[in-house]
Amino acid sequence: MIQKELISDLKIKWDRMQEAMRQQDVDGCLLTIDVNLYYTTGRVFNGYFYLPATGEPYFFVKRPNGLSGDRVFYIRKPEQLPELFRENRLAMPEKLLLEADELSYTDYMRLQTVFQAKETGNATTLMRQLRQVKTPWEISQFRYSAVKHAETYAYVKGCYRPGITDLEFQSAIEQVMRRNGSMGIFRTYGANMDIYMGSVLAGENAETPSPFDFALGGGGMNLSCPIGANGTLLKEGTTVMVDMAGNYTAYITDMTRVFSIGRLTDLAYHAHQTSLKIQREIEKIARPGTICSELYHLAIEIVEKEGLTSYFMGTKQQAKFIGHGIGIQINELPVLAPRSKKVLEPNMVFALEPKFVIPGVGAVGIENSFLVTDTGLEKLTHFEEDIIDLKG
Amino acid sequence: MIQKELISDLKIKWDRMQEAMRQQDVDGCLLTIDVNLYYTTGRVFNGYFYLPATGEPYFFVKRPNGLSGDRVFYIRKPEQLPELFRENRLAMPEKLLLEADELSYTDYMRLQTVFQAKETGNATTLMRQLRQVKTPWEISQFRYSAVKHAETYAYVKGCYRPGITDLEFQSAIEQVMRRNGSMGIFRTYGANMDIYMGSVLAGENAETPSPFDFALGGGGMNLSCPIGANGTLLKEGTTVMVDMAGNYTAYITDMTRVFSIGRLTDLAYHAHQTSLKIQREIEKIARPGTICSELYHLAIEIVEKEGLTSYFMGTKQQAKFIGHGIGIQINELPVLAPRSKKVLEPNMVFALEPKFVIPGVGAVGIENSFLVTDTGLEKLTHFEEDIIDLKG
Repeated sequence: MIQKELISDLKIKWDRMQEAMRQQDVDGCLLTIDVNLYYTTGRVFNGYFYLPATGEPYFFVKRPNGLSGDRVFYIRKPEQLPELFRENRLAMPEKLLLEADELSYTDYMRLQTVFQAKETGNATTLMRQLRQVKTPWEISQFRYSAVKHAETYAYVKGCYRPGITDLEFQSAIEQVMRRNGSMGIFRTYGANMDIYMGSVLAGENAETPSPFDFALGGGGMNLSCPIGANGTLLKEGTTVMVDMAGNYTAYITDMTRVFSIGRLTDLAYHAHQTSLKIQREIEKIARPGTICSELYHLAIEIVEKEGLTSYFMGTKQQAKFIGHGIGIQINELPVLAPRSKKVLEPNMVFALEPKFVIPGVGAVGIENSFLVTDTGLEKLTHFEEDIIDLKG
Repeated sequence: MIQKELISDLKIKWDRMQEAMRQQDVDGCLLTIDVNLYYTTGRVFNGYFYLPATGEPYFFVKRPNGLSGDRVFYIRKPEQLPELFRENRLAMPEKLLLEADELSYTDYMRLQTVFQAKETGNATTLMRQLRQVKTPWEISQFRYSAVKHAETYAYVKGCYRPGITDLEFQSAIEQVMRRNGSMGIFRTYGANMDIYMGSVLAGENAETPSPFDFALGGGGMNLSCPIGANGTLLKEGTTVMVDMAGNYTAYITDMTRVFSIGRLTDLAYHAHQTSLKIQREIEKIARPGTICSELYHLAIEIVEKEGLTSYFMGTKQQAKFIGHGIGIQINELPVLAPRSKKVLEPNMVFALEPKFVIPGVGAVGIENSFLVTDTGLEKLTHFEEDIIDLKG
């Protein structure tokens, strides 16, 4: 069930969970959502992970066949759990955490009936809180993704041919990604956040507002997935922003670079340099203890001073954040948003993405993934940050 | 808000919903899950679609900015809905349907509090039931996807090079798909059903059981997504099964073809021919009125007669279905399973996938998408059905 090389990493996570559970007087936590199973067991399976506030974890597996190990039990349905608890002299929890923001109403109610706990709390809140601060193994996974991500971006310029569309450009980049080890899937948190492998935004398509809670939009190929590339021609004097996934391990790095077709307007270069300035200023002050909203307000201050407010994070619809935690999902905590009281802690990993949309030109700006160290920030994603001319 | 060319299609769907709601004494249905929004409005947005049992539909939109039309209202949060209902003299529903199997527990409880309905029922059940029977426009979307799907498969042989792995082969196929208009995303119903653009299963990897409820498994690249290609070399005497998505519109066709590297064992060819025989026999008898379990049992009968039971739908783990409805999600209703009492109806669309796994060789079998007509089945996905030798 558990890969040997992961056991010390998983123990760190279980200890943190148990400490938090005891602080909240919680007796047990039952997890079944893929990202939480991967986080706590090192694999996605169909079944449940149960951790009591004190003692060893249990693994209740429906599929796949053939897993074995300590406290691994095969079940067909959750209704078998009470008997398995009895057989293992495992106390039924009086206060139980379930993934309330992720489980369907039906599944949640079914588990509530199975456990008959006096009280149920929200495991999603706990897990998203804990998952913010990464373990050494998780950080090693990010480092690997970051190197592969940068390697891939080095090939982006070679994907350009005069006269191609954003979709052709994106599909060529996807091919490079997959050849370089991208796993393809790209996990997001929350309903209605479908996106395919990231975003390539060209020219005026960058102005199109989307339904999703991503930094920028784009019309997409079809109203069933209205985000990203839409067939826009890459044409002289416009940009194409590449924000493709760093999904080379389960831990996704986030990284955006801007490419131009020839020379852009001065406004576009000015806005891009302002993004780099925001990044520099945030790198200077961010450290453990910094409040996330402070970083947002610092960015807004710079944007206002430079007279670029109406272009910041979109035009027709403007995103109200400049960064977000990353992990197994692309939108983890914390969020760098105007009212976020969250405080940076060592080993948090987040993406910082100050971006502008310039009408008639397209999107400009930067995005990198950063690790919070004991003293500040360490950039994980290293690649040329100026606008790269595809014709140059 | 609504595209003009879709209005007559949407009206068919709204009428069917209202008829079913009145039969169940339901006053209103509130939808917010992407696939149900696309189905009922022709677009994915962030917000709610509300249909009373009698009268016109309402569209409550959070994002994107800029939508307009009859009964389109912008909201920030669902708590604004009661006031909007009052302002529009729209009765608050006493019996309300919410997407209980898809909404998170938290979101469901929030909407229950907002509406204070005397009774809430399950909109997921209703919508999955209704979505089984496709409208003429939906069928036209399938026909388009099917043509593109077959076009793509015609290029699969050209993706082969001696000595490549399943992942290299898959990535080359993905490139063809994207160039041919694939939207990339691939929607499934249910938790923990992540998969990337379909499945390419080579050689012994076909035996690896997966946690997911798909027909076959495969180890995948990483335990965070343990399904499909895992780096297996395409080697002499083995098969590679290509089951990549027909995601060329929002309506996904499902189609599998088997390729061999050179000559296979007689057992493999025998099993493949048995899959084709199952397909032929089912094509002969299936029509409106046929019970889905009958088709399953017919398949099992043939498999037993041919002495292939231990290879059918996997070896170490065997799927207990031979087909499934398709639509905006790849696993819609009905399911062709041993206990399914569902009856085929005209304009249902389903995938039939009798498959075998032969140890030492790999997966063989067939999958096609079928439309139920007034008198029988019409195959939508046309392409060579025998095993295609990649070296031939």
